[in-house]
Amino acid sequence: MGHGAGGETMQEFIASHIISHMPDAGMTVPLRSLDDAAVVDGIVFTTDGHTVKPLFFPGGDIGSLSVAGTVNDIAVIGGDPLALSCALIIEEGLDLNMVDRAMASLGRTAKEAGVPIATGDTKVMEAGAIDQMIVVTSAVGKRSPHMDQNLEVASKYRTVNNTWLTDDSTRDGDVIILSGNVGEHGIALLSFREGYGFESEVRSDIAPLNGLITEALKIGGVVAMKDPTRGGLANTLNEWSQKSGVGIEVEESSLPLTDPVRNAADLLGIDPLSIGNEGKVVVSCVAEMAEDVLKAMRGHQYGKNATIIGRATSKYRQVVLHTEIGGKRILEAPMGDPVPRIC
Amino acid sequence: MGHGAGGETMQEFIASHIISHMPDAGMTVPLRSLDDAAVVDGIVFTTDGHTVKPLFFPGGDIGSLSVAGTVNDIAVIGGDPLALSCALIIEEGLDLNMVDRAMASLGRTAKEAGVPIATGDTKVMEAGAIDQMIVVTSAVGKRSPHMDQNLEVASKYRTVNNTWLTDDSTRDGDVIILSGNVGEHGIALLSFREGYGFESEVRSDIAPLNGLITEALKIGGVVAMKDPTRGGLANTLNEWSQKSGVGIEVEESSLPLTDPVRNAADLLGIDPLSIGNEGKVVVSCVAEMAEDVLKAMRGHQYGKNATIIGRATSKYRQVVLHTEIGGKRILEAPMGDPVPRIC
Repeated sequence: MGHGAGGETMQEFIASHIISHMPDAGMTVPLRSLDDAAVVDGIVFTTDGHTVKPLFFPGGDIGSLSVAGTVNDIAVIGGDPLALSCALIIEEGLDLNMVDRAMASLGRTAKEAGVPIATGDTKVMEAGAIDQMIVVTSAVGKRSPHMDQNLEVASKYRTVNNTWLTDDSTRDGDVIILSGNVGEHGIALLSFREGYGFESEVRSDIAPLNGLITEALKIGGVVAMKDPTRGGLANTLNEWSQKSGVGIEVEESSLPLTDPVRNAADLLGIDPLSIGNEGKVVVSCVAEMAEDVLKAMRGHQYGKNATIIGRATSKYRQVVLHTEIGGKRILEAPMGDPVPRIC
Repeated sequence: MGHGAGGETMQEFIASHIISHMPDAGMTVPLRSLDDAAVVDGIVFTTDGHTVKPLFFPGGDIGSLSVAGTVNDIAVIGGDPLALSCALIIEEGLDLNMVDRAMASLGRTAKEAGVPIATGDTKVMEAGAIDQMIVVTSAVGKRSPHMDQNLEVASKYRTVNNTWLTDDSTRDGDVIILSGNVGEHGIALLSFREGYGFESEVRSDIAPLNGLITEALKIGGVVAMKDPTRGGLANTLNEWSQKSGVGIEVEESSLPLTDPVRNAADLLGIDPLSIGNEGKVVVSCVAEMAEDVLKAMRGHQYGKNATIIGRATSKYRQVVLHTEIGGKRILEAPMGDPVPRIC
């Protein structure tokens, strides 16, 4: 299961057994860079398989998750999502009401995001050959109309080499903004699945973020974005640090973490920074524009709790957490998300 | 299982429980038309889930199948495939050699088609929650550079209203060409799976057809194309007949059917016209250009056995088979493909 959990074990497995076999020539943002989406001939393109268990949980379901996750992957690289595809794999005999409920939720989330379902495919596997239902969504997008101006603003303050909001684009001095509370999706799912009872207080944060991201891009100065899904915030910051070749320091006291999430994580013995989110975006921004970008994000329903959590620095080469009691520790990339089948 | 078999039962299931929930506004070729691919803002887009069993079989495997099926769906509507995505769902504990072999085959087929793998996703499910491996491929493409001239040629001979090679574009008098032998994929798979032993003589026909299709478009006069996958040739011709509102008559004696496929189908009690193919294309063409298109197709390695099998006619409203003994019968749309998990 570690091979699919989104951490370092998975990166190694994917590199040696999957990507090594695949031709990926001629792309602007290629497969090998392992960004959230690829860019080929001006088209932004991404895919995500969803095997979440259970199919329905507090705050969302496999339908809303599938649309939000895929729309967000297009948006965080600087794309405007144009259309979604939906491939369903269904277990023979699955209650049709479950199919209807999941598809209705998928449709509602697509409408909220303003992205049509363009094409699809349905396969049925015999009972026992698949656990209920898998939804694989892909999406295509075009470059956001605000991207050129966004990068132009950034380039007033420092040299900007990236043309898309890729993982390798953060530099010394850039400010890191998180759009809201961490850990909610993973804790809600785990708690509900295992019957711990925290779900009355913690709900999944699933949300399509293309609207929020547009508000940030309109201000300008954003150089990288990523949604901290599998492996959580710890994985996102470590990917940026490694691919950009820069350290990132984070103030633990600034992390937006609710008490119910903190308590549940303590009791379950898992780090809320290593657990997946499905409605959050991490933004790397030139320092001079950070306050304006933050303000714009707070004006959007999905960015109300946005906050500055740290900054990139050449003092370190890793992700360093300044703890609430005055110490510091390295925030490692998790080996994988502690919660299996989270998405 | 009938809900996933590609026939009429499936069409009804998809319409009422899936598509009814999905927003699909603003597209040139929308979801509701159930064509092989959608067109949105000039981008051709398609997706296919592959649950084939077993993963490896005579003539192909889940890797080659995934690429060929998706590339073909882009090409048959008049698109030039630009990039593929690949979402893997893998059973925990699956032999890594199987992953490597399938991915190597997938990579080879993508190279042959000249289409890069742009983006991907990998999920692992616990043992028992998934049967070995599922591969979901999506593809994006642009309009083929030969499409405008192709339709211009067609419009010399009759009014042409379609701008893409959609299922509703065949008219009275158009000639139907099939690119080669029917039934090989389904028979090879069923025979191998069940141990009937025909696989020494019948191999799957899996092939990426974008090269062959380009040769036909270069000649011009093609108004519709479709790859006869689930539900086979019978399903393809019936979809065309229904969506185009025209009858299609087929000469049984003209159907390219090898003796091993015929014998195996007889013994297994299945109709080779209702069984899936993965390396064939059916072409609808204005009559005046049919011989030239046929000749161009025969010049390509995947069209060597191409042949004219019939023509569209307003004399009928259905698909009518002129039998070898001089009678005629209606070729119905199958309720589903007789072979489950064929792709």
